[in-house]
Amino acid sequence: MRADHGLPTLLRYENIAWYDEEAAHVRLLDRRVYPRELRYVDCSNPEEVRLAIQGMVTQSYGPFTAAAMAMALAARSCQGQTESKQLAVLQQAAERLATARPTTEAQMRAVVEDQLAIARQALTAGESRLDLRLKNAAIERLNQRYTRIERQGEILAELFPQNGRIMTQCFADTMIGMMLRAARRQNKNVEFYCPETRPFYQGSRLTASCIAEMGFPVTVITDNMPGYVLKAKSIDLFTSAADVITGDGHVINKIGTFQIALACHYHDIPYYVSGDPDPRHPTAATVCIEERNPREVLESLGCCLTLPEVQGYYPAFDLTPPELVRGVISSQGLFRPDALSKFCYS
Amino acid sequence: MRADHGLPTLLRYENIAWYDEEAAHVRLLDRRVYPRELRYVDCSNPEEVRLAIQGMVTQSYGPFTAAAMAMALAARSCQGQTESKQLAVLQQAAERLATARPTTEAQMRAVVEDQLAIARQALTAGESRLDLRLKNAAIERLNQRYTRIERQGEILAELFPQNGRIMTQCFADTMIGMMLRAARRQNKNVEFYCPETRPFYQGSRLTASCIAEMGFPVTVITDNMPGYVLKAKSIDLFTSAADVITGDGHVINKIGTFQIALACHYHDIPYYVSGDPDPRHPTAATVCIEERNPREVLESLGCCLTLPEVQGYYPAFDLTPPELVRGVISSQGLFRPDALSKFCYS
Repeated sequence: MRADHGLPTLLRYENIAWYDEEAAHVRLLDRRVYPRELRYVDCSNPEEVRLAIQGMVTQSYGPFTAAAMAMALAARSCQGQTESKQLAVLQQAAERLATARPTTEAQMRAVVEDQLAIARQALTAGESRLDLRLKNAAIERLNQRYTRIERQGEILAELFPQNGRIMTQCFADTMIGMMLRAARRQNKNVEFYCPETRPFYQGSRLTASCIAEMGFPVTVITDNMPGYVLKAKSIDLFTSAADVITGDGHVINKIGTFQIALACHYHDIPYYVSGDPDPRHPTAATVCIEERNPREVLESLGCCLTLPEVQGYYPAFDLTPPELVRGVISSQGLFRPDALSKFCYS
Repeated sequence: MRADHGLPTLLRYENIAWYDEEAAHVRLLDRRVYPRELRYVDCSNPEEVRLAIQGMVTQSYGPFTAAAMAMALAARSCQGQTESKQLAVLQQAAERLATARPTTEAQMRAVVEDQLAIARQALTAGESRLDLRLKNAAIERLNQRYTRIERQGEILAELFPQNGRIMTQCFADTMIGMMLRAARRQNKNVEFYCPETRPFYQGSRLTASCIAEMGFPVTVITDNMPGYVLKAKSIDLFTSAADVITGDGHVINKIGTFQIALACHYHDIPYYVSGDPDPRHPTAATVCIEERNPREVLESLGCCLTLPEVQGYYPAFDLTPPELVRGVISSQGLFRPDALSKFCYS
């Protein structure tokens, strides 16, 4: 049931978010310092998991697994109490976790409500170890996700030229591991260019490290370089995952995606995004762009860069319109962004 | 003859590059650590000035003043020797300084050759303190530059709306000080957004500090944000200086300028560049884009961000085509980028 060691560090179960029933905590790999340091954050209650998600200890799909595991931890905390008391504890945890980060609130709510539904069934069935039931559900969800994304990785890798140069944006989590495994299976001889994605440097720390661990050549550039590098290095394809894909084909992803997609459009380089459209967001009107603490952009590695009277502004995501997207690689295959109405929501 | 204290720290003579005849050195403000630290680098020979320029101790127009002052230092080192020996020393210094950084080599050569010509005249006229003659020439060049740019600052500030939001890119050196003084004279109520410009953070450290020192509101963003912020914050105008403007209207400036200009074009926000076209570069074909040490993009403040097997790539400038430029604010007034053939080279 433990990690698949064919996957890089950042995609192994026990590193992402792991409810340990003996220690009674959820353990998260601290992606804020990886790979400089291999450090874990142990959360002894769901509120600590929520704060860790907010504080960027984990990101990409990490928060969803962390929240699912936090529900197991919540179940553990009220073990043996009355059914209604247990449900109340779980409901409160679910509500707190759902609102950890605004842009992905709808998805997070879906994850914790799934866990709640499983908990209700298990309580009715008289199961005694609700915590293990929820932990297994979290692992099963991750496995289903890996299977689904493996297929998307295949489709994406098929779009790579035989000897290609690919630009990515930020950490694509599972997608990047699956994409690289597929590229290997297809004998694609590809190399990667990763913008560093300030202020947290996920591009250099996480994406590039992950690609290097998988044995592909990878080059980091700063976030002001993609427009130039796309042409100077003859990039063949740009790809990213998405935090939200709306029903009408808008992509909400890590800040910077829009300006790379725009430069791709200018240079006639295709941009493919991986992910399913979100039925809760038919258009971008319902998506809230999270604004984080402005101090984070005024600092690097905890060191202030400018005079104290200078302000900061930190929108964490941006919005790429469908006309800049060549295709959406969904669990139902490749769609044009203006044809997502044909996607069948389950 | 010393600094104009109506100007911010970074534009005061004695901070930019200052030949001190008593100490026999050229003193440079270390812009790599400003404003965290107020530190100076003292160069005791022209070769040290060359290395300081290469090492980014000074940037923007700083290297040109530093090179002019280094010529004074060179003159000092051979004082009292034969005329031909003095000329040989000066010629060697000029040649070394000219090639300090590739993208601006033509301009740098013009500066040091000006100094050489002055030295030749002074030697012929039998002047004894060639070093002071060259120092005064460097100051005079700076004064002429301030006067010329003051006028460009007026034109630029006239383009600002009464209550406007302006985005800048990297440190515009003299231009930013003059532009702000003009905005103040014109009672323009403007605020500024500065991308930080990794990897050296000139935007947050230098541009933003300079604007704050002049008393205008200023907000720093990371380099992946301009595309989003232009729209989200209703930016009225984007402006930058240029390292080179070609005769056919291409702008070579700090890496990142192109992708901001492209996003401006997309959002219909005007981009104005300040500077004169360069007669030595009729097109972009003759411009060499400097590539710096890749380690610089893999680190922040000296700390490595990723795994050792990850590569880096660091082009220091990019190229913005004329169709993305609304206007060129030159010493002869405002030109359309496709009409620079009307500019009269002196």
